[in-house]
Formats: sequence, C-alpha cells, structure tokens
Amino acid sequence: MNAFSDLIRTLEDRGARRVALQFPEGLKRQSQACISALRNAGFEVLVSGDPCYGACDLALDTLAWADVLIHFGHAPVDEQPAVIFEPWKVDFDIAVLENALSLLRGPVTGLVTTVQHAHRIPAMEEFLKSRGITVRVAEGSRRTPLRGQVLGCSFTAAKETRAGEILFVGTGLFHPIGIALATGARVVALDPLAGTAQEVSGEALLRRRFAVIEKARGAGTAGIIVSSKSGQIRMDLARRLAALSPNAVIVTMREVDPAELLNLGFGCYVNTACPRLAYDDQVRFPVPVLSPQEFEILCGARRWEDYAIDEIV
Amino acid sequence: MNAFSDLIRTLEDRGARRVALQFPEGLKRQSQACISALRNAGFEVLVSGDPCYGACDLALDTLAWADVLIHFGHAPVDEQPAVIFEPWKVDFDIAVLENALSLLRGPVTGLVTTVQHAHRIPAMEEFLKSRGITVRVAEGSRRTPLRGQVLGCSFTAAKETRAGEILFVGTGLFHPIGIALATGARVVALDPLAGTAQEVSGEALLRRRFAVIEKARGAGTAGIIVSSKSGQIRMDLARRLAALSPNAVIVTMREVDPAELLNLGFGCYVNTACPRLAYDDQVRFPVPVLSPQEFEILCGARRWEDYAIDEIV
Repeated sequence: MNAFSDLIRTLEDRGARRVALQFPEGLKRQSQACISALRNAGFEVLVSGDPCYGACDLALDTLAWADVLIHFGHAPVDEQPAVIFEPWKVDFDIAVLENALSLLRGPVTGLVTTVQHAHRIPAMEEFLKSRGITVRVAEGSRRTPLRGQVLGCSFTAAKETRAGEILFVGTGLFHPIGIALATGARVVALDPLAGTAQEVSGEALLRRRFAVIEKARGAGTAGIIVSSKSGQIRMDLARRLAALSPNAVIVTMREVDPAELLNLGFGCYVNTACPRLAYDDQVRFPVPVLSPQEFEILCGARRWEDYAIDEIV
Repeated sequence: MNAFSDLIRTLEDRGARRVALQFPEGLKRQSQACISALRNAGFEVLVSGDPCYGACDLALDTLAWADVLIHFGHAPVDEQPAVIFEPWKVDFDIAVLENALSLLRGPVTGLVTTVQHAHRIPAMEEFLKSRGITVRVAEGSRRTPLRGQVLGCSFTAAKETRAGEILFVGTGLFHPIGIALATGARVVALDPLAGTAQEVSGEALLRRRFAVIEKARGAGTAGIIVSSKSGQIRMDLARRLAALSPNAVIVTMREVDPAELLNLGFGCYVNTACPRLAYDDQVRFPVPVLSPQEFEILCGARRWEDYAIDEIV
C-alpha cells in the first residue's frame, strides 16, 4: 500500500526483517491495513495487543521478538534506538483559528498544541501574525521534541513562551487546564476539529483536588504507585514519598485499574505513573488517588499555597 | 505477626532486605496483614499491584526492585531462584470424601487435587483405602511439583495414574472437564468445601468448541496471541501456528482483554497464553478465540477426531 511506502523504505534501509507494531488505542482499528502492507512487502510482523496511550508505554516486550518496533501516533519521550516513531498527523483548516481571536487579549500570545497537530505550528504562527497577534512558540522538554508541543505530563513548551496568555490548539480540556496551572497564564483553548474556543481556568480542578486531599486524611494506609511502563517509572520519587509516612508502601502496577486498587485494600494511593490518572480518573477510583505534590501537602511537607501540577520532566 | 514468623525467618536466612510481595486475586485482601508483619520485622516492602492468577505470572518487574519475590498461593511452574513460593493451604474435613464414594466404580481410582489442597493428599489416600478403594496418586509434570497436583493447564498427575476413573477433589468444573478430555477416564468431582460430588464429562465443552471452530471459518484474519507472562510464553508454538495460514499474525498481550481483542480488529484469535482463557471465557470474547489444536483443525492440519485439550508441558 502506498500509504506505508516511506515506512517500508525506512525498514529496508535499516535491514529490518522482523517488525513489531504498536498502535495507541485510537489508532488500533487502522492496524490491519498496516499489517497487510508490511506483510506484502515481505516483513515478518508482530503486533502489540496491550493498551497504549503514549510513547511513555513502549512495547519493549514485543520488540524483544523483533528487529525494530514501530510506535505509531506519538513523538519519542526518551532515546530508543530500536524504535521508529511514526507520526499520525491530523490536519485542519487554519481558518478555524479565527474562532479564537476574539478571546485573545495579548500583548503576547504563546502558542502550543499536541503531537498530531504539531506540523501545523508554522502555518498557525503565520495566520496569527497576519491577524496582528504577537505570537511566540517555544521548544519544550526532552519529552516533547516537537516545537510548540505539550503533553499531558509536560507543559514546558507553554512555560518557555513566558507569555501571559497561551493559546492551546487541540482537543479536550485536560491539556489547557494543566497549562493554566503550570504557567499561571490566561489560557484559551481552541478545538481545531469542532471549531469551538473557550477560556479555561484551573480553579475547578483545584477545588476538586482539595476535596480529594481532605478525603485522604481519613485513610490509614497509602499505596505509592510506581508504573512499570518504560517512560513512567519514577521509583526515586516514590521512595522519597514513601519516606514521608510510616503507613506508605510502594506498589508497582502496569495498568492503574480501579478494581485492583480496591482489591489491594490501601486507604488511599499516590500516583507516580501517568500524571493524568489522578486528575482525570478520580471518578473511576474507589478511594482517593493523590498526585505526588498532593501527598506532600497531606503529610505536611508542602503548603497548599505551593500546590503544583505534576509533570514528568 | 505470628502467622508470618516462618516466612520472616526464611527471609532473614537469605539475607534479604528489600522484599517484593505478589498475591493472586483471591488473596490480595490478605496482603495488608503480611505487609505490616514484614515492615515491623524491618524489611523494606514492595507490592505487585497487577492482576495475578498463577505462578505462570510472576511479578518479575517488581522483583527487579527487590532482593526476593514472595509469590503467595501457588507452587512453582518453573525454576526461579529469587522467588519464594509461599503456599496458601486450605483444609477441609476428610470425611467429606464420603459424599463421593457412591459415584466411584473402580477398579482403580486415580486421585488428584489443586495446589491449596495438595497437603491433604496423604490423608485422602488413607481415607479412601480404609473404605476399600484401590487408590493411585502420581507425580505430575515439571509445572505441577506437588504429588497428585493438577493445574488448569497441566493434567499430567491425572494421566500418570493410568486409572480408568479419576477422583478430582477441588472447586469448580474446569479442572475435572480438562481431566476427562486429557485422560479419557471417567471423572468424579468432589467440592471439598461445599461437599457436593458429581460425575463430569467433556461432551458439552466439545460441542461448544465445535461451534466456535465453525464460527471461526468466516473470519478473514487470525491474531495468534502470545502471552508476555513469565510462564505462559509459547512463541515457538505461535510461530508454527502462524505458518498454517497466510492471514495469521502474532499478537503479544499481557492481559487477554475482550475490549482489546475487538479494537485490534482480527476476525478470530488463537490463544497460546493460559489455556483456560479460550475454554472458560469465550462468552466474554467478541469473536472466536481458538485453542492451538482448534486452529489446527480449522486449517486442516488436524482431524476433529484428534481433538485434544491444550496443556502447557
């Protein structure tokens, strides 16, 4: 298939024969076309069938059976010489930015987006400049290699614009809320596919998190979750947190699953895996799941005024 | 706590300082007492929070952070020098065997059980002999190290009795059905906790499996599942199966999850992970999930008359 001809050339250049494929949940349905194309081109194909939500969760166990792993849909978060990161670009009509203009106040607007739209950063910059906006785009952290790219666990490219106002172009509200908390800037979120724009604040999240911390005060025991996913392992942080309480124990997990949390029987958990889990999924969890900073507040090692959103740097 | 004093002595003898704990799903609720006992004895404790259903699924990623892994509830299925297998014995009143006597015909009765009751084998033998039964108990495979022990994936201890009749003492019907199919013997199952006894046949399972194979004939593609769990990895078998069909591809999975099977989009799957999954959980799966032998039948590489239940040997 033509859609995979560049990829096939890359594999041939590397001399790969056995190829492992990994698709995030939203792209798995597209895997069959890719499998067919690579098999028809003569490669032996293996597929990772485990859930995947980011480049922080590489199928290294599948790679162990292959010459190379092709990870679709995400930019790398760390050095992995045997992994090819294959972007899944999602285009949109630049004119949709028009919908955000009335919400921008300036004087300088930082511009950020997520990986699937990062190739549109130059066109977005140009459009905003043509409308008289002073726009600034920054490089991010090691985990966000694309210019202007943010992750749900890394808002460096927003902070580094040092702008008082950030325009986030992407879907969902988690990233812009995180940006608001991480930067203290005014944040405008534009969904480039739905065309909707809105100002976003972190206040409601802070109120909910305060309630979760208060609820955790009644917990007799704390499980400090350490992920076993390649790019989420924060054992040093977990050990430091476990030392804050005599009733805290480290718990390793691959998938942070509500049923497992209940079955393990800790009164609360502290999440050092994907930061989004604590913020986004509390409603799914049977007991309070705190961020590292929230557990520090609970243990008296951090003041509430020093609340910070959790990032992996 | 006294209940863990032998374990604490074993750990001290090994010079272990950092101890990883792994409990199967049914024992996880007991973990807090064990954690407290080991912490109070001065050990640094880590807990595996992932689902666990057998010694075939060792928490080697948790062990990587510790000196030793204590795996509760199962006997070893392979050599693991850094793992302590800690049994969870479940006792019962031997007189319950009385309930099975009227179903036994002889002339020789093989006796098997599951890991949690294996320590009662000598007392059961003695009771049956005292009632005039000619009873035979055999050693199993490498994966069933206890005399008379069977697993859902290994019925060697039943076969090796070479008896025309097998008495299975344990809960559930999966093991006795597997024994019936693996041995061809008459099988009587006694639940030692409920006290119920019944004769068990594999016929109903065979009829259901025939229907699943027929349904799989319409599937355009097959995903050959290879587990990434320590004691379930059967890549050689998977490669041999994948070679039977131009439309079969190997899929690695940790948990064989119905939602993932649907999302990956194969028309059917072949399960080389835990054999029970295909037989026991078909009702949960959105598409046919075949055993290795069933896929051979589908591909014309095995006759239906040579149907065999899947075991890991």
